[in-house]
This record gives sequence, structure tokens and C-alpha cells, in this order.
Amino acid sequence: MQFGINNTPFEEAEFRARVANTKARMAAQGLDVLLVTDPANMNYLTGYDGWSFYVHQVVIVALNEEQPLWIGRRQDVNGARLTTVLPDERIIGYSDDYVQSTVKHPMQFVADQLKARGLARGTIGVEADAYYFTGKALDVLRAELSEASIEDAGVLVNWVRVVKSEREIHYMRQAARIVEHAMQAAVDSMGHGMRQCDVVAAIQHAQISGTPEYAGDYPAIVPLLPSGVGTSCPHVTWRDEPFVNDTGTIIEIAGVCHRYHCPLSRTVYLGKPPQKMLHAEQVVIEGIAAALEAAKPGALARDVHAAWNTVIERNGIFKESRCGYSTGLGFPPDWGEHTISLRSSDQ
Amino acid sequence: MQFGINNTPFEEAEFRARVANTKARMAAQGLDVLLVTDPANMNYLTGYDGWSFYVHQVVIVALNEEQPLWIGRRQDVNGARLTTVLPDERIIGYSDDYVQSTVKHPMQFVADQLKARGLARGTIGVEADAYYFTGKALDVLRAELSEASIEDAGVLVNWVRVVKSEREIHYMRQAARIVEHAMQAAVDSMGHGMRQCDVVAAIQHAQISGTPEYAGDYPAIVPLLPSGVGTSCPHVTWRDEPFVNDTGTIIEIAGVCHRYHCPLSRTVYLGKPPQKMLHAEQVVIEGIAAALEAAKPGALARDVHAAWNTVIERNGIFKESRCGYSTGLGFPPDWGEHTISLRSSDQ
Repeated sequence: MQFGINNTPFEEAEFRARVANTKARMAAQGLDVLLVTDPANMNYLTGYDGWSFYVHQVVIVALNEEQPLWIGRRQDVNGARLTTVLPDERIIGYSDDYVQSTVKHPMQFVADQLKARGLARGTIGVEADAYYFTGKALDVLRAELSEASIEDAGVLVNWVRVVKSEREIHYMRQAARIVEHAMQAAVDSMGHGMRQCDVVAAIQHAQISGTPEYAGDYPAIVPLLPSGVGTSCPHVTWRDEPFVNDTGTIIEIAGVCHRYHCPLSRTVYLGKPPQKMLHAEQVVIEGIAAALEAAKPGALARDVHAAWNTVIERNGIFKESRCGYSTGLGFPPDWGEHTISLRSSDQ
Repeated sequence: MQFGINNTPFEEAEFRARVANTKARMAAQGLDVLLVTDPANMNYLTGYDGWSFYVHQVVIVALNEEQPLWIGRRQDVNGARLTTVLPDERIIGYSDDYVQSTVKHPMQFVADQLKARGLARGTIGVEADAYYFTGKALDVLRAELSEASIEDAGVLVNWVRVVKSEREIHYMRQAARIVEHAMQAAVDSMGHGMRQCDVVAAIQHAQISGTPEYAGDYPAIVPLLPSGVGTSCPHVTWRDEPFVNDTGTIIEIAGVCHRYHCPLSRTVYLGKPPQKMLHAEQVVIEGIAAALEAAKPGALARDVHAAWNTVIERNGIFKESRCGYSTGLGFPPDWGEHTISLRSSDQ
């Protein structure tokens, strides 16, 4: 396979393996063509990395074509040349009059490209519930590709992403170093009277400046630090209100390196924590240790959850939601991979 | 209209006016019900503000119901109680087994709610090309609401948002103060040998800490600062490479206050700019002055563009893309309102 100039943080062989694994799943699901619109999946298969997912763009994988095809706004073609491993002829831009137009849609351009390449027949998979793949995009594809059968491919590429290479794990470890710095910055800057926004500013500074050796990348989710009564609202963002003594704050952040995330959550209590919280702390530490112990080759997601759950319930603590999930590559609005969840129903 | 406890940065009368203006447009377009899924539009109509748009959520406006209805994940119900003007009975949560499930979809829950309220007939508008309104969401609604006609409402609420209240302009002015600080932080931290990521860290710190009087909120787009040859790739994000002398860098950032954006772009040249760039600087300043002069009540978007374009083309500079667009409320991935564009085709 002839790739373009490689400015990505991975060897070309790794992209070849990702594409091959994707094609194997496509064949097993009876798909001839896959339209990949999730920015993380686009990045995974080609290296593409730009803040351009606010316009329609797609990576096309066809069983009978060796390499993927990138289609996006013409303005972003140079970015695709810079950040992907694709040769120039596999990067195609649509003109700016497709952008947010009421009379034409970028998916018409995509359909035309499929037709011109003889790919507008057979079964075409789409990521029907992926961010940025809109209802209108699906309707336009259906209208334009009447000779093809369009099917929901689900999170096909996400499942390929679950198994990480050594290089991917290397970047996740670098992300771990960044999130350790960011969490320390949070703890160091918190205190009675400090404004929430100033603590978030310190966290973001640490997330982006990274380490002297490598940069931090932007996390798919902004820092979340509900405090006091706000801890009942896990996704409400900061205000300029000050932190106050004798309250707890949940800090949920991630470090990111080359789009690979390492999330980390900690609870900070300003003052002497109540006995109930100290008890929970001990139970959670024990529960996490049990979960890590259970997370061995061959174990199922629900086995890890069971190890955690047994410990906490024995200690009178109950948690309805999952205790973990698969992560890695991510773009806003989520760093979860939408595949493995550590819960009792996940096999 | 009975609203709930108001923790929002606006008076309740303002929300009433927004809902009334939306209903007037709905009636004109023949819509009985509107499903609002764009996070900025959800915020505009109810005040809802949380990083929860990575799961399906919706605000329903019905011509025959006084207040909007918020439907989202049960985990976010407390956040909706805290941040919206809606009373508790207009806030409804779906259980966690709807989240990223392969067997059920949140839009089934939404359809059930519409049916239970007698709203599953007539014409129901959706924001068919809005971020986070997926192809699957539309398919599920069509399957579940067979007695209704589902139509693309386009950017109906976005058009209501175009005209700003005094309070909204007040927050955009506060956002302007924040972006001035952030741009100064960028200029102060740039220099030969400084890493791109460290400059972005300084920008983000200023964006979030805001001013001593008020917090900065997260921008819908991360700082973009293509440098050197990278200036041909407008949406590629930062790396850990250093800035170098005798190159230009485009800085595109925003200040945000209560989700209201004030974007600002500047070009920084390290060293003595070439004559061509100094010429462009003078022309751009003159062109912007002409555009501002033309932006008067009664003028069309294309009139403003013409004023700009006449100046720059007379000076031998040509720019194909629009020279401005409507902005204000925004959530990732975009701060543009997707309505007015300053270009020759916009009436």
C-alpha cells in the first residue's frame, strides 16, 4: 500500500493493520463500503487531525479499494495532506458553497464520489448514531444512493479500536503523566475562597502545556468539578463562585497526547472529611484494587465489575452505574469509546 | 407562565419572549411541535447548560403547551433543575439503560412522551442537520411517530437568536473583555523558541479565568494558531513545535461569558513583516472600517460584504470566502449561528 508523507505519530504499518482489521469486520457484517464520520474513527484509519468536524466530512473504506478515501471541505484538504498518511489522490475536497447551504448538501458530493468510483452499489454501512452524522446526512445519502442498501454499521471501527498497540499505550501513558500534573494543579489551586474558574484555568494550563518533553492535546470534555450541592449535577460546568470549606468537590479531567486520553477522577474535601466520606474512601480504594486484580486476560467486563461490586456492597455502598469503560482516542464531545462497559450486563 | 427557580443569567421575561418568537416561526412554517436538539438552542429556550450533549437530549416546544419540555438522561435532571427556568414537572429523565444501548434508543422515550401528551400527531419539526441529531435519532422518531408528519425545521431557532437583547449584548461585551485578555496573553507569550502548546496554555488560562469580576466560559472551538506553512491548514491544532522568527501566525480565539462568544482573530509576525504583509494589514484595516460603516439598520449582509470587498479588491487583494457571520450562543463544535453570512449571495 502506497501511503503519502507520514507526519502522524504512528508507523504506516499500524494504519495498514487498522484498515485491514476494519475490512475484516466489514466483510463479516456483509458491508461492501463503510462511511466513517466519527472524528475519532477518521483519525484512527487515516491520521486526520483537525478541528473541522463542525462541517460534514467522511473517510470511506471500500473492500475493493486498498486505501481509505478522505472527503471534506476544500479548506481542510491541506490539513488532511499534512496530518494523514494518505497520498494526495485519496484526499478530496468539496467547494465552500456546500457548507451550511439550504440548497445543496456535502453528502451529495460524497454520493457523487461513490458513484464515480463504482462504489454506489451493494451494501454501504454508515455510523448511524455517531456524533456529527446528522439525520439530514442520512436522508441525503438514501436519496442519492438508490441502488445501494444503506445499513447501520454501528460502532464497527470503535470495536477495532478497543485493542491497543504498544504505540497507542505509550501515548496513553504520556497522557497519564499529563493528567497527573493537571490533577496536582487542581489540588494546589483549590482552597476556601478560590473561584471555580481559576482552578479550571490552572487545570487547562497544565493539560495543554503537558510536560517539557511533549505537548498536551485538548481533551474531548472540559474539566468537570461539581462542588457542594452541585455534586448532584455531574455535567454542569464551572462558575465564578468560590469553593468553600467543609465541602467536597469531584474533579473529572483527562490528559491527552496525540488525541489519546487518560481520564482521572478524584474527590477533594476542603477541611476534615466526615467519617462517612473517609469510610467510602477506604471502600473505593479496596474496590478498585479488587477490580484491577480481576482485570486479567480472559476475564469479561462483568467479571471486573463483579469484583468491584462485591467489595463495595459488602461494605454497604451501592452504585447503580457502570464502574468503568473503554477509552483512548477521542474528540469532543466524548472520550469514551462506546464499546466495553464495566457492568453486570456486559459480556 | 410559571417558571421554576431562576438561576439563569436572564430574566424570565426574556425566556418567555424567546419561546413566543419561536412559536410564531413554528406557526408560520406550519409546525405543531418542534424538537430542539442543538445545545445552543436548548440553552436559548430554557437556560439548560451542561456538558451532556454527548447523550441524546431534547427540548420540545409545542404550540398548544405554554412552556417547553426538557428531556434528557436521568443523571442530568438535577443539572436541568439547577440551570433552567423550567418547573420540575417540565423536566423529564430517561433511565441509564437507554444510553449507548444496542436494543433501545432515547428517541423511543421521547416519542413515548409525545404520545402521552397528545403531541404525536400533526407536523413535528426536527433540526435535521444539527450537531448531535443523528441519522438513527431521525429514523427512530419516524418509526415511532407514524401518525405524525416529521419535517426538517432547519435553523428555525437560530434565526430567532440572530436578534440580541440588551442583556445578551452585555454578555457579549464581557466576552470581548475576556478575549482581549486572551489575545494579549497570546502575544505576550509568543516568541522564537516558545512551544505552540505553551502559548495555547496561556490563552486558555486567560479564557477561563476571565476577569476579577466574572468567569470565562469554555469556547466552542479550541484556540487555533496555524504558524508558518501551517497557515495553509486553518483547522489543524497545535503541536509542541516551537514558533520561529520571520514567520506569521494566525490566532483565532474567542472569549465566552455565559455561553455567549466574542471571537477575535489577529495575525502575529515574529520579526519584521515583509512589505506584502504590511500592505495587506493596511488594506484589511481599511476594509473592516468600511464594513463597519456599512453595517447600519436596513443594510443587507451583502451590502456589508460589498463595502469590504470593494476596498480590498481595489487594492489588489482577493478573498473568496465570507468576511463575517452571525455569532453569540454556542457549544462545541462551533460558535457560528449558521444564519447570516457576510457574502455577496446573502440577502
